[in-house]
Amino acid sequence: MSELKGSCIIGQSGGPSAVINASAYGAIKTALESGVITRVLGACNGIKGVLNDNLIDMGKEDPKELEYMKYTPSSALGSCRYKLKDPDVDDTDYKRILEIFKKYDVRYFFYNGGNDSMDTCNKISKFMMKNNYECRVMGIPKTIDNDLAGTDHCPGYASAAKYIATSMMEIYRDARVYDTGMITVVEIMGRNAGWLTAAAALASYKGNGPDFIYVPEVDFDLDEFMAKVEKVYKANGKCIVAVSEGIHDKDGKLISEYGNDLAKTKDSFGHAQLGGLASYLAGLIKTKTGAKVRGIELSLLQRCAAHCASQTDIDESFASGEAAVKNAIAGVTDKMVGFERKTVNGKYVCQLKLFDLSVVANTEKKLPAEWINDTKDGIKEGFVEYALPLIQGETKLVKEDGLPRFVNLKKVKA
Amino acid sequence: MSELKGSCIIGQSGGPSAVINASAYGAIKTALESGVITRVLGACNGIKGVLNDNLIDMGKEDPKELEYMKYTPSSALGSCRYKLKDPDVDDTDYKRILEIFKKYDVRYFFYNGGNDSMDTCNKISKFMMKNNYECRVMGIPKTIDNDLAGTDHCPGYASAAKYIATSMMEIYRDARVYDTGMITVVEIMGRNAGWLTAAAALASYKGNGPDFIYVPEVDFDLDEFMAKVEKVYKANGKCIVAVSEGIHDKDGKLISEYGNDLAKTKDSFGHAQLGGLASYLAGLIKTKTGAKVRGIELSLLQRCAAHCASQTDIDESFASGEAAVKNAIAGVTDKMVGFERKTVNGKYVCQLKLFDLSVVANTEKKLPAEWINDTKDGIKEGFVEYALPLIQGETKLVKEDGLPRFVNLKKVKA
Repeated sequence: MSELKGSCIIGQSGGPSAVINASAYGAIKTALESGVITRVLGACNGIKGVLNDNLIDMGKEDPKELEYMKYTPSSALGSCRYKLKDPDVDDTDYKRILEIFKKYDVRYFFYNGGNDSMDTCNKISKFMMKNNYECRVMGIPKTIDNDLAGTDHCPGYASAAKYIATSMMEIYRDARVYDTGMITVVEIMGRNAGWLTAAAALASYKGNGPDFIYVPEVDFDLDEFMAKVEKVYKANGKCIVAVSEGIHDKDGKLISEYGNDLAKTKDSFGHAQLGGLASYLAGLIKTKTGAKVRGIELSLLQRCAAHCASQTDIDESFASGEAAVKNAIAGVTDKMVGFERKTVNGKYVCQLKLFDLSVVANTEKKLPAEWINDTKDGIKEGFVEYALPLIQGETKLVKEDGLPRFVNLKKVKA
Repeated sequence: MSELKGSCIIGQSGGPSAVINASAYGAIKTALESGVITRVLGACNGIKGVLNDNLIDMGKEDPKELEYMKYTPSSALGSCRYKLKDPDVDDTDYKRILEIFKKYDVRYFFYNGGNDSMDTCNKISKFMMKNNYECRVMGIPKTIDNDLAGTDHCPGYASAAKYIATSMMEIYRDARVYDTGMITVVEIMGRNAGWLTAAAALASYKGNGPDFIYVPEVDFDLDEFMAKVEKVYKANGKCIVAVSEGIHDKDGKLISEYGNDLAKTKDSFGHAQLGGLASYLAGLIKTKTGAKVRGIELSLLQRCAAHCASQTDIDESFASGEAAVKNAIAGVTDKMVGFERKTVNGKYVCQLKLFDLSVVANTEKKLPAEWINDTKDGIKEGFVEYALPLIQGETKLVKEDGLPRFVNLKKVKA
């Protein structure tokens, strides 16, 4: 494979995470230092930045400042939720992307995101091939949801899991401080996959976790739930429950929709806007039991808590960005960088592996059924063994004045 | 003052904090090592543990395990919300307390809590004096609310402030990731005092904070608020607001009560149970502006996030517990340990100071008016100068398996 000189574009897409910038920084730093990639462009707000010719020159940033990206949450380049149409139906966007690629002599395209972003990445890759425009396209995974196919786990998941488990342990301590009764319902993100909610089991493993954990992989029976909570509360005076935002009944109806009067809107990918589940369940339980009940929604905090990120996650995220660039320069294209887990001398080792974009795009990896207990209200030990190595290591985030020092980009237009 | 041999009781009361156990540990460790205090008893669930003769022997705990108290959130001995009656009206509880004190030869009583706890402490102190029972009574302050009179600040406040400022900075990054509009309302604790909500100004000082901060020291005008939020949103596409749970209109009515259909209950101190303000305001704003709006309630997390505690706060908390015991042994009684701020060579120095319990009990210290801006929607630089030294230093909390290692007490009954 001959050396391919030219510019690269890196974009970020989908919901942010605590470490998506670590991945992007891995790619940006490697590209800037490659000697092959002639110009490193950042797309402002993902693919929309390409469509709108809204690109910034990463080479104009201070390299010392760029280092802070590694520990800065959310997407430093800006994100979007924009679904490209089927090119056979409408190829307007693709033609525009090709035009921009030609304008800047873009020969490398790196897209950093989750399921929908890998779909974007895949479609662009296939369009460029079909149109004989040489451009190496690589997906750099990111999703706190941990639901990308193929890869053992996704960058971003472990930091969210660490925050969730840590917060659950703290809530556990707080929620049993009085000798009076207390029921706590904690709502955790996860529309279709229970990976994030399952992380509450890490707190239980430490003896400071919820009594019940409900994930969207199994149907949720409200009456059964109420009976179980009441039973534990009557026996112990306390009950803590972790519920995924996406739990649904046997007909597929979201429990959050049961009592929610707020008009539901759909985002551009057709996902329903969720929220308010914890309050809804807390209200029901309060009415039924008369207990003091608290509904807690971890909300945005679980995906942006860089101060509680896993250093393992940060390092692996950086490595995935770095590997995307190195592989592309070596001639690889149309792949997503992912992880394979090895056990060497009884220890967890994470190896980088490439996956076909077409396989990854638009498939969701659910929590394996064998990790959900028989009564469908808890998570088994197998999950703890899976997740524990991922959350090791404390972030090296620099503090200034006792507060996080996040990156501040100049964002010089290309 | 002659040496007073005898047992001590230490109790914890009121809402927990990330560092109340650091204070308790300071007192317990100092008492255990004093050579004067013959037995160190922990009251289970505060004064209720005394009334119910539910005491544990702290000397039976492993000293190495006890060290973990310094970094464990919530009240390790258990807390209560129990208001002692006026002894002139009903002295039943006081007689019972005296009976228990005599039973265990209790000559030292340390009570670790906030406003209501200092009231309890004061009443017990005065009753023992009146009844000529020699017992040295010391209050050890604790409140995330920072509203105790006299002392420059309260143990527990700084850690909550650090968590709030850190989370606000992370939410700020997350809430502007898309190029589409977004309004975020963050609800922070504080019924009558705005100290906690003001901590959001530390994030603004770092350029990653809210556009508006509303505290309960000033009246809240809903129409004016809506107009301001809409104006900033229209200009910038984003708006972030921090609101105290206790904001109220000019007639004193809580804003959270406006749209809240849930029956309001009162706790035993007569405080209204609050909650749901962020959702309520978010709903209103969404209806008015059509924008995407998120309501986030920091909930229990802000008072129990030991993983984000201020080491300055932890050290000062420990020192206040230690000082309570040392002073009591030296003959002091009827006082609360507090802090006085000094500036030495331009640097913050915290000195311990004793305050009369009768002065501290039941008085609330509000956020000074000069730190609230003229438009009553923001916090001035003076507050930042006050708060910044308090949040310095990262917690030395030990992690095991990447998760916090909290204390596990044996709780051997006395």
